[in-house]
Amino acid sequence: MNYPFKQKSYEKNVVDYRNRGMDLEGLINQANEYYLSEDRAVIYKKPTPIGILHVDYSQNRIKDAYFKDKSTFDYNGVYRGKYIDFEAKESHSKTSFPLANVHEHQIEHLRRILKHGAISFLIVCIRDEYYLLKGEDLLEFIASNARKSIPYEYFLKKCERIEERLRPTLDYLRIVDKVYFKGE
Amino acid sequence: MNYPFKQKSYEKNVVDYRNRGMDLEGLINQANEYYLSEDRAVIYKKPTPIGILHVDYSQNRIKDAYFKDKSTFDYNGVYRGKYIDFEAKESHSKTSFPLANVHEHQIEHLRRILKHGAISFLIVCIRDEYYLLKGEDLLEFIASNARKSIPYEYFLKKCERIEERLRPTLDYLRIVDKVYFKGE
Repeated sequence: MNYPFKQKSYEKNVVDYRNRGMDLEGLINQANEYYLSEDRAVIYKKPTPIGILHVDYSQNRIKDAYFKDKSTFDYNGVYRGKYIDFEAKESHSKTSFPLANVHEHQIEHLRRILKHGAISFLIVCIRDEYYLLKGEDLLEFIASNARKSIPYEYFLKKCERIEERLRPTLDYLRIVDKVYFKGE
Repeated sequence: MNYPFKQKSYEKNVVDYRNRGMDLEGLINQANEYYLSEDRAVIYKKPTPIGILHVDYSQNRIKDAYFKDKSTFDYNGVYRGKYIDFEAKESHSKTSFPLANVHEHQIEHLRRILKHGAISFLIVCIRDEYYLLKGEDLLEFIASNARKSIPYEYFLKKCERIEERLRPTLDYLRIVDKVYFKGE
């Protein structure tokens, strides 16, 4: 008689296990793989930019390289015919999201792509909650505030929350639909 | 009296000097920098994907890494509100462009992004001439031909040639306008 309940509990454990310890980047990669497999969008994380100093050509291996600064966002691709380009950020503070997390070059990049018609935003993780912060709102916050961080309350008031679901866990395109396509 | 002629000749030399020895990738990077500075488009080359095996954290340097296979195209970004995604290829043969130059994963990528509304193409350099090969035409060629290479005559007949100009040398967006926006 208890079988359906047990079944459900088992499934929940599987889900918990899969996502346990998965950071924001892992959740977004998981979502992107899901979207690709379901043919909903083609969105990839860009490779980390590096400067190569020495290659051992006998084994085709990089033997000395350094990490370059990023001047764009991490994820881009195509969704519903539009260019989509975003960044994922985790806030270690419980009260606010420090703007120092976003480099000056990235703000410049954001301004440029918005002007050319991109859909662009940050996915911010704060207090283990996920929010979609529109690029336009980020620029407006920077322009109209002297503060160096966005308070937690701002996310509650101004941003759509990305609730965790079963599959994918971080179904951020559902919120993109809501925010940019008015739920069409 | 000959001054204007000399002036022109001098300019030509400058251009030749700047582009001498510049390979296709260099020409496209140059064009993309120009488009960025003129605020016409935001298009970047993706970093080379690598797998990192060892990092020396004391100096934050990569001390062992390998090159990963590419499963997407090299360049992407936003132009006139559209997602643009393309690859540059040089043919070492004077009679045809070997399809082995394009990996199976890249063809799969091309199919996917076209379905989602991307503008996607190859820029092929053959006989020191540059052609824009539409993604749709590439897929059609593959589907309807048993041959393993695209003959030079195909480019002459079916593709728009990207003539070299002064600034940028490879003004490929002019051809994108012609092909995808009907010269609007």
